[in-house]
Amino acid sequence: MDNVEISQAVIKRLPRYYRYLGELADEGVMRISSRELSELMHVTASQIRQDLNHFGGFGQQGYGYNVRNLYDEIGKILGLDKSHKLVVIGAGHLGQALSNYVNFERRGFHILGIFDKNPDLVGMKIRDVTVSPMDQLESFIRGNDIDIAVLTIPKTSAVDVAKILVDCNIRAIWNFAHVDLAVPDSVIVENVHLSESLMTLSYNLSRR
Amino acid sequence: MDNVEISQAVIKRLPRYYRYLGELADEGVMRISSRELSELMHVTASQIRQDLNHFGGFGQQGYGYNVRNLYDEIGKILGLDKSHKLVVIGAGHLGQALSNYVNFERRGFHILGIFDKNPDLVGMKIRDVTVSPMDQLESFIRGNDIDIAVLTIPKTSAVDVAKILVDCNIRAIWNFAHVDLAVPDSVIVENVHLSESLMTLSYNLSRR
Repeated sequence: MDNVEISQAVIKRLPRYYRYLGELADEGVMRISSRELSELMHVTASQIRQDLNHFGGFGQQGYGYNVRNLYDEIGKILGLDKSHKLVVIGAGHLGQALSNYVNFERRGFHILGIFDKNPDLVGMKIRDVTVSPMDQLESFIRGNDIDIAVLTIPKTSAVDVAKILVDCNIRAIWNFAHVDLAVPDSVIVENVHLSESLMTLSYNLSRR
Repeated sequence: MDNVEISQAVIKRLPRYYRYLGELADEGVMRISSRELSELMHVTASQIRQDLNHFGGFGQQGYGYNVRNLYDEIGKILGLDKSHKLVVIGAGHLGQALSNYVNFERRGFHILGIFDKNPDLVGMKIRDVTVSPMDQLESFIRGNDIDIAVLTIPKTSAVDVAKILVDCNIRAIWNFAHVDLAVPDSVIVENVHLSESLMTLSYNLSRR
């Protein structure tokens, strides 16, 4: 399983399976057929079988999927059985929104530090983390073995901060800045470009 | 051009072209070849030519693309030459972050109303908009000819609010709630599922 190269399209669909299965498990549903799951998720049953077959296929003929089991397995595939240490860079509204989102913590994403260059925000407490000044970022990342940096700063600063992050051997950047970061291939970048999402909406609206 | 069905994959790439061309125009660059654009954007030149050919192809042999022209044309394709009226539902940190983002305004997305059910947030001013209580949402949407609703509320409330929005003939929902909204096909839904993005990052990290 570890050697299989899975397409990003399949990977992008896994969190959605994970969400539905989690909700089913919470509702006490023990097992589900690919047909039932397909109706719930508005995806074809064959798509579901194909997607899940990439990971060994957890269904049993005539039984369907064990909901809790499949949920846990997909969680493992997504790396959610491990815990991660994060810093949030940018304590503005978006940084605060992400830092306050308790579900990330539940999934093993622990925000250990929040940084901002604005002295008015330094010292502010968000949940149990105090916002620190930017000049402490580097030593904090190195000293606390931080995996993931969340960038919620404007694109001009993001480029410079990304260089610092690379120097500190950060493993991944969750980038909300509206810029493509130039980092070595060894650093994972996951972009959330909100204005691009809004433009896609606008495109679809203009076609109606 | 209006009759051409363009794949969502191409559409998803257009905002990125738009961003790069906007930056080039700001820097005073007048024209660019597909090769130069390809090096800048780390996409193949043939991909660029193919993508832009969907829209009639604005390049001229031996000249390349007129930056400003191509920028404006892509803007039109994305519907950015029209203006849109928005409401933001949920005045928490994420709602505040989006409401404060001036670039949306520049692109023609005008936030006319912000709503929240929390009485502590009602009355708060975000830029020049005052947060209103939820019971005013329906009449506000109808009275102000609102196109787009931005949902930054928890998933349990989002499902109910979406029903109200559909009743008010909303044209599009920019959905940040972690749920798939069941709305008629006539209503465009653009989802931003932040936790799914973080899980994709986590997956890629766990494969390293």
